Amino acid sequence: MKIGIIGAGAVGSILARELNKLPENEFQLTVMARTARNGFTVLEDGIKIFHDIPVHDILSVKDTFDVLFIATKTPALLTLKETIKNMTHGNSEIIYALNGVGYDDMFVQGIPSVVYVSGQQHDEYIEHFVNQKIILPDQSFTYLDRLIQIIENDESIHFDLVKDKHFEQVRYEKLLINVGINSVTALSKNTAKIFEDDSMVRLTRTLLKESIDIVNKNSQTVYISPDFIDYAMEMYMSYPREMGTSMYYDVMANRTTEYQYIQGFVYNLKTDDHPPTPVLDTVVTLLSGYEKL
Amino acid sequence: MKIGIIGAGAVGSILARELNKLPENEFQLTVMARTARNGFTVLEDGIKIFHDIPVHDILSVKDTFDVLFIATKTPALLTLKETIKNMTHGNSEIIYALNGVGYDDMFVQGIPSVVYVSGQQHDEYIEHFVNQKIILPDQSFTYLDRLIQIIENDESIHFDLVKDKHFEQVRYEKLLINVGINSVTALSKNTAKIFEDDSMVRLTRTLLKESIDIVNKNSQTVYISPDFIDYAMEMYMSYPREMGTSMYYDVMANRTTEYQYIQGFVYNLKTDDHPPTPVLDTVVTLLSGYEKL
Repeated sequence: MKIGIIGAGAVGSILARELNKLPENEFQLTVMARTARNGFTVLEDGIKIFHDIPVHDILSVKDTFDVLFIATKTPALLTLKETIKNMTHGNSEIIYALNGVGYDDMFVQGIPSVVYVSGQQHDEYIEHFVNQKIILPDQSFTYLDRLIQIIENDESIHFDLVKDKHFEQVRYEKLLINVGINSVTALSKNTAKIFEDDSMVRLTRTLLKESIDIVNKNSQTVYISPDFIDYAMEMYMSYPREMGTSMYYDVMANRTTEYQYIQGFVYNLKTDDHPPTPVLDTVVTLLSGYEKL
Repeated sequence: MKIGIIGAGAVGSILARELNKLPENEFQLTVMARTARNGFTVLEDGIKIFHDIPVHDILSVKDTFDVLFIATKTPALLTLKETIKNMTHGNSEIIYALNGVGYDDMFVQGIPSVVYVSGQQHDEYIEHFVNQKIILPDQSFTYLDRLIQIIENDESIHFDLVKDKHFEQVRYEKLLINVGINSVTALSKNTAKIFEDDSMVRLTRTLLKESIDIVNKNSQTVYISPDFIDYAMEMYMSYPREMGTSMYYDVMANRTTEYQYIQGFVYNLKTDDHPPTPVLDTVVTLLSGYEKL
């Protein structure tokens, strides 16, 4: 089975580190990114380890993959469309290991996933905070089922690749978690410490409430309980005060963000007759202004 | 007459450059800042000129001034309180050449002003875009009246130091101009180009409307017409697309902002029974989050 991973940021590196332990006779792993290198360094629990897993320049790879994880920033999907088409076949399983929602139709072989890997990309290494988990929809797969089986039974591989019966629910919950904390950290250019202030907690709760109402009114498959707001806020307040979010790190580095697939996706679910959502509108407009060239 | 200027940023430098032309027999000018230097460079109309007007370390100055312009960032007022007390006498005229509102009571000799000087402080020079004007309340002054007279009659001095009968009106209008454009440029980390997008125009109009309603409900002396929104938006849209604002430059340089004296001042005017102002609330909360240490 030929497995490809596109992207050697936090998600791609952690996934590569674990899948590299698969038996070589059955699995061939290729890690790809914009620039080739001999491997990558992961900082975890205070220890930096270099993993000599080669990262290939994606444009130099001529292979065809049975399983392909796309672990890039979401906006890169569009740029990579042709490249990915050329490295897959009709039965390939292309896993979107991406933030946000709204790109499922990019490839007919595309499979959505919910990724839980908290990390930060530094210049010289990847810092891994918590979680190494990818959740998939509960369906049969040609290749992934075998991969899931092996990972489950190989105690040396520390990665949860699992199916979830309530996949859509899990997906929207992750999306809403991101809408809340990514918005306020990116726009205030500050870390989880901002939740120490009541006004920020109130603002984030309002943003979550507006977003949940949109999801509940417009999704056929998902219902988010109002209690989810408490759950999300407790999660945010449990984070280390200096911990940022992917969108915070993007803004601090003056990089493009994934807002179109996170806040923008929820915003675009709205129907014309939806009640006012002034906080979400403000957030989306400011994040859109940030991108303007 | 002993004149002091505290601050050698855009406002202080432009003011110093012009007041340095006053007749030396009558006026003694001292420019002060955090660090001493031999002079400063101003870039204007594409030409850089070095002005050999000494800037003194403020802590080394033992003089007492009749007229003192405070042309620092607004948050510096608190830090400088004792220093300024020690360099003034009971009849000194202390002009707040500062952004925002809400600090008038800092000194009994304090005089509010509305400053129109658009510039940007670079590492090695001051870039001066447009305007060199300070508006004062229409009242009698012991020293300033003489200074105004001289400046008016000396054709070599290009600075408008003028009184305005409608001072409070002018002051609130300037405040509202700042509330609008400073908020959206600082939070989107982008320049006046953002007004090319309809959604940003709508957001800014809503922010102005909420702010004007607060001012009109809570100020005894000022009434801002709803037409002011069109006036402000036209002004914003006339700016060069790459022009930032003071708060934008602060955020880009990770410096503290003056939001407490601009958006925060309007926000704090609100009474408990005021109708909801979701955009202003969001702006103030995000800018407050930005400051959090």
